[in-house]
Amino acid sequence: MAEMVSNKQVILKDYVSGFPKETDMYITTSSIELKVPKDSNGVLLKNLYLSCDPYMRPRMRNVEGSYAESFKPGSPITGYGVARVLDSENPEFKKGDFVWGMTGWEEYSQITAPHFFKIQHTDFPLSYYTGILGMPGMTAYVGFYEICSPKKGEYVFISAASGAVGQLVGQFAKLLGCHVVGSAGSQDKVDLLKNKFGFDEAFNYKEEPDLNAALKRYFPEGIDIYFENVGGKMLDAVLLNMRIHGRIAVCGMISQYNLDIPEGVHNLMNLIVKRVRMEGFLVPDHYHLYPKFLEIIIPHIKEGKIVYVEDTAEGLESAPSALVGLFSGQNVGKQVVKVATE
Amino acid sequence: MAEMVSNKQVILKDYVSGFPKETDMYITTSSIELKVPKDSNGVLLKNLYLSCDPYMRPRMRNVEGSYAESFKPGSPITGYGVARVLDSENPEFKKGDFVWGMTGWEEYSQITAPHFFKIQHTDFPLSYYTGILGMPGMTAYVGFYEICSPKKGEYVFISAASGAVGQLVGQFAKLLGCHVVGSAGSQDKVDLLKNKFGFDEAFNYKEEPDLNAALKRYFPEGIDIYFENVGGKMLDAVLLNMRIHGRIAVCGMISQYNLDIPEGVHNLMNLIVKRVRMEGFLVPDHYHLYPKFLEIIIPHIKEGKIVYVEDTAEGLESAPSALVGLFSGQNVGKQVVKVATE
Repeated sequence: MAEMVSNKQVILKDYVSGFPKETDMYITTSSIELKVPKDSNGVLLKNLYLSCDPYMRPRMRNVEGSYAESFKPGSPITGYGVARVLDSENPEFKKGDFVWGMTGWEEYSQITAPHFFKIQHTDFPLSYYTGILGMPGMTAYVGFYEICSPKKGEYVFISAASGAVGQLVGQFAKLLGCHVVGSAGSQDKVDLLKNKFGFDEAFNYKEEPDLNAALKRYFPEGIDIYFENVGGKMLDAVLLNMRIHGRIAVCGMISQYNLDIPEGVHNLMNLIVKRVRMEGFLVPDHYHLYPKFLEIIIPHIKEGKIVYVEDTAEGLESAPSALVGLFSGQNVGKQVVKVATE
Repeated sequence: MAEMVSNKQVILKDYVSGFPKETDMYITTSSIELKVPKDSNGVLLKNLYLSCDPYMRPRMRNVEGSYAESFKPGSPITGYGVARVLDSENPEFKKGDFVWGMTGWEEYSQITAPHFFKIQHTDFPLSYYTGILGMPGMTAYVGFYEICSPKKGEYVFISAASGAVGQLVGQFAKLLGCHVVGSAGSQDKVDLLKNKFGFDEAFNYKEEPDLNAALKRYFPEGIDIYFENVGGKMLDAVLLNMRIHGRIAVCGMISQYNLDIPEGVHNLMNLIVKRVRMEGFLVPDHYHLYPKFLEIIIPHIKEGKIVYVEDTAEGLESAPSALVGLFSGQNVGKQVVKVATE
C-alpha cells in the first residue's frame, strides 16, 4: 500500500454571478494516495505552480457550449499549472518529469487522461511555464503572429497590456518594429509598460472619461492592429479608430466576464467602412506550434530581449484571492500561485 | 454651339435623420449642353438605368470618414447607373459606348473624371449592369468567394436574401453544394427564395419573435458562413449559432442605417468561443477581379444556372419612392429605376 498524504484543495462552492469573491471558494483538506492505479494510463502530480487566468471566470458559470468546461461546484478548481510527476502509468511521462498543462487546484492531483507538455528547458524559473513559456506565451505568439498578420511599422494597440499575454504581445510588436501603445488600469502598470516592456506609449483607461478621444490622441493615424483582451466600451472606441484593412485579434473580453448580459457594441459598421478583419482564436487549436514558439522565445529571453513580470501569491491558501484579484486588476503582470517548491 | 436640352434631376433637400421619406428629395428641371468641353477629359452621358442601393442611406447623412462621400444637399443624388456616352473627350470612352459606374440621378450627366466599366456584353438586359453584372453582382462574388472561403457542404445563412446581393450569394452557395437558408421580410420573398433561387429553406424574420430560436430550427448543426446584410438583432442571434471556425462576411447592416445610434451587439464573445472570423469588405477594393467574375457569371446566366430578379420603377420621377422603399423592404429583388430607353 502506497503512502497516503493529506491534500489541501481549493473548492468552488457554487456557480458565481457578478464579480467572484474569495468566499465563492473554500479550502478543504482531503487525503490522497501518491500512486496511480496499475494500467490506468494516469499520472500522479505534485503541483508546484498554479496559473490564474481570465478564461477561468466563464468556467464559474453553468454554461453549456462555452469554450471551456464549467467547474463543478463542490470539486477543486482546475486550471493550468506546473507540476512534478510522482508516479506514472502513462508511457509518455515518468517519475521526476516536470510538466505543464491542466491540473487541479490542490497539492496533489491524480490525472487520468494526461495531456501535458513535458518541460525540457529547466534552466528557467518553473513558474515561467504558467506564463511566458506556457499557455499565455503561446496565446501572445499565436494571436499576434498568426491572427494579426503584423507588418513592420504598423500601429498596434493592446488592452490589458501589462497582463500575462499583453506584456508579451507588446514586446513581440516592438521587436518587429511596430509602434505600440497599451492600456492598463493603474499608473504603476502604465510605468511598467513604458519603462520595463518598452511600449512607445501607455495610458490608464480608468482616467480616460472618453476612450475614443484617448485613442485619437495616441493614434492620430489610427490603429492597424488591436489585440483585444477586454471587450465592451474599449472595443467600441477602438472600432472608431481602426485603419483601413486593420485587424483585431479577439483573445479575451475580461470586462464582460462578470456581467450577466454583455454590453452592446455599437460601432461594428466600421468593420465595413475600414474593411477590418476581426478574428477570435483559442490557443489550444495552435499547440502544434509550441516547439516553434520555444525556438523563437528562448533565445529572446536568454539575450534579454524579452522580459516577463510575474505576480506570485504564496501558498495554495492564497489562490482564491489571487484569482479574484485578476478581475479587479489587482495583479501586476502574470498572476501565479506558488504551491510548493520542487 | 451644341444642343441645349432640359434635364430632369433628383435633388436631395437636406441631410436625413431617421427613415428617409420621398419628400427628402425633389424633382427639378435644369438644362444641359449635350457636349463636354474640349480637352476636358470628361464624358457626357445619357442615363438609362439608375441603381437603388442600401449604401446610399449613409450618404444622406453628413458624416466624415464614411466609406462613401455624403450627398450634397441641393445637388443631384449620385449612384451607380447604366448610361450611353453621347460625347467624350476621354480617350477611354467614345460616343455610343454603353458604360456602368457612378453617375447622377438625372437624365443627362456630365462626368469630369469618368471611372466607368465599358459594357462589352450587350446581349443581356442593360439593367443587369446595375445588378447581377454590376456592383451588386461583384459584391456577391467577392463577399462569398473571397471573404467567406466557402467549402462544399457547409451551412450558409444569408440575411436580406432576396435583395440585389443576397439572391446571388444564395445561388453561388447552392452551385458550390452548400446548404443555404435565407431570411427576408415577406412571404412573397420567402417563396421567391425557395422556388426561384433554389434556397434549401427560407423564413420571414418579421414573423419570428425569437431569431435565435428560428436559427436553431433552420441550423440544428450551426452556421458555417453568415453573409451579413442587416446587422443588429439578426447578427446577435447569428453569433449564438456560429459553428467552430465559422466566417461572417460583413457586407452591409441595412437595419442600422436609419438609427442615430446603432443597436448594441452583445454576443461577440462567441467570436472567441467558436474561433470565428468576421470581416468587412467594400467591393471597389476588388474591381480588378471584374473580368474574372464576368467569365464565371456569363455562362451561368446563359445556361440558366443563375437567375436574377429585378424590381423596376419606371421613370426618373419614381426614383425617390424606389430608393425610400428599399429601407422598408418594398422592393422584391434588385431595385432599379428605368430612366430612358437607349
